[in-house]
Amino acid sequence: MFYAGNREMDSPLNSEIESFFDSAPPLNDRAAISEKLKEFIALNSSESGTRRVACVTSGGTTVPLEQRCVRYIDNFSSGHRGAASTEHLIKMGYAVIFLYRRGTCEPYCSSLPDDAFLECFEVTKESAVQVCQPYSEAVKRAIRDHHAAVAGGLLLKLPFTTIFEYLQMLQMIAVSSRSLGPCSMFYLAAAVSDFYVPWKSMAEHKIQSGSGPLDIQLLQVPKMLSVLRKEWAPMAFCISFKLETDAEILLEKADMARKKYGMHAVVANELLSRKEQVVVVTNNGKIPVYRDKTSSDSDVEKPLTKLLVDRHSVYIKDSNT
Amino acid sequence: MFYAGNREMDSPLNSEIESFFDSAPPLNDRAAISEKLKEFIALNSSESGTRRVACVTSGGTTVPLEQRCVRYIDNFSSGHRGAASTEHLIKMGYAVIFLYRRGTCEPYCSSLPDDAFLECFEVTKESAVQVCQPYSEAVKRAIRDHHAAVAGGLLLKLPFTTIFEYLQMLQMIAVSSRSLGPCSMFYLAAAVSDFYVPWKSMAEHKIQSGSGPLDIQLLQVPKMLSVLRKEWAPMAFCISFKLETDAEILLEKADMARKKYGMHAVVANELLSRKEQVVVVTNNGKIPVYRDKTSSDSDVEKPLTKLLVDRHSVYIKDSNT
Repeated sequence: MFYAGNREMDSPLNSEIESFFDSAPPLNDRAAISEKLKEFIALNSSESGTRRVACVTSGGTTVPLEQRCVRYIDNFSSGHRGAASTEHLIKMGYAVIFLYRRGTCEPYCSSLPDDAFLECFEVTKESAVQVCQPYSEAVKRAIRDHHAAVAGGLLLKLPFTTIFEYLQMLQMIAVSSRSLGPCSMFYLAAAVSDFYVPWKSMAEHKIQSGSGPLDIQLLQVPKMLSVLRKEWAPMAFCISFKLETDAEILLEKADMARKKYGMHAVVANELLSRKEQVVVVTNNGKIPVYRDKTSSDSDVEKPLTKLLVDRHSVYIKDSNT
Repeated sequence: MFYAGNREMDSPLNSEIESFFDSAPPLNDRAAISEKLKEFIALNSSESGTRRVACVTSGGTTVPLEQRCVRYIDNFSSGHRGAASTEHLIKMGYAVIFLYRRGTCEPYCSSLPDDAFLECFEVTKESAVQVCQPYSEAVKRAIRDHHAAVAGGLLLKLPFTTIFEYLQMLQMIAVSSRSLGPCSMFYLAAAVSDFYVPWKSMAEHKIQSGSGPLDIQLLQVPKMLSVLRKEWAPMAFCISFKLETDAEILLEKADMARKKYGMHAVVANELLSRKEQVVVVTNNGKIPVYRDKTSSDSDVEKPLTKLLVDRHSVYIKDSNT
């Protein structure tokens, strides 16, 4: 079906994907990223083969409207879901490649105020920097756990800004993770742009105002989920996310996406309630997951990642028999 | 000219401005912002009348494409210019209202790494949080100077996200600052959207993909500089910024903007060289300003704010005679 001439709208031909990549500006630091990935995967590929590696994507991707970019279209995402999920996955024994939008929420920072650097610290009379009392434990935990994860080789952070960077990096990670077979998980929580302006048809300079309304025509970004699943990393356990603002169409669209792209699970979330509950859509049915409301510092990512890790365990077992 | 029926494109009728504000979603926290502004201006309006108050705007404004916003158009701006200029202005005796895009660079953070919170600190064996050696002085300075400015009533930080919030807040600040007369300065470094989708014609829900290319028609945001200058704060000293990627048209456009909007100065900056040099365009001519290259930690904002503060002094003197 994927290669069918009589294609459906969301199943792009390989030629569309190729043309997206061909026209994308090349990654600036491809060699350095490739090197880091190789090291990280080698480090986490023990002979016993028990370490699992998740690629968690997080934050929104941007679509530039000019080559020398002043304006761009962005997809709203604080990155909170991806950051919190990364913490839980590491706690459950995973190594995580965190592919995140520059400037969005990072793992271990989710319980801190937005403006953590300036809010959490003070300078004493003796000219020492110290943590303000109310944040003391949270700050200590954040810094300690973050350093431990990075130093222990369990967290590799790779930032992106544009849709072009994101998709090129996702492909690199997927291809590098192939050697992990079913122990590899893709947890695709980033809010990926659906529409873009092809690099070559983009204005080089800032679009001038002063001559009336502006019309922008945007093409659809080819959906890369099928090609990730079928070609880039065919053995990996793949979870995608579907966000809608309209609850009516959410579950139906999530299930359609699951079938169309061959996902092992699709997490359906509605914009307004997404921090309280989500629904995990699998081929066995739809499983609602709720934040534990009896505890103020709990998040919905904890039961969500727990459920998905259990499913991943079953998947690995089935793959090995 | 401003009210002329035979209007020029960049000089909107008052009715256009009214219609922009009428259709904008109301500010959530208008009362609290108004209260903070009143207190801040009262605090800095001494009887001797010598304290000057600058409103520095910083970062890019966003234009939502859906009411329950998933996608939006953003204007690239790190906020570095506004943040660094705020530090210099406070050092030169100004109180600053810092109207900034949530998440962009803040005053006193400009010499720190991007990821300052996690990069600059470590937890010792004794379980104390301490600053990593290379950042020690920079972190101490940032935290101390920031706290001193806020506690001393010299810095009021007001965050915005959308163009609707930005323009409503700018109007509030301008009207509140009227009592300061010529001692008030507007330093409009924010990258303000030129195009927007009127709130009422915006899709409520996330725009669906899957049905081919997307066409967006954007209207021009009415230019508010004239109305700021002539109605909201007619005595204030006003500086706007012009950014272009094409050096050929930059100075000409900056001078046109100065005349059209009655600015006291327009700072012309080109995207690629903006951290090294700018040109201040006034009615007396064009003055290039350069970063001091002999010092590695100097910035172009230092000589730039110095020049503008000198001009402001002359303006105040002229206004009082």
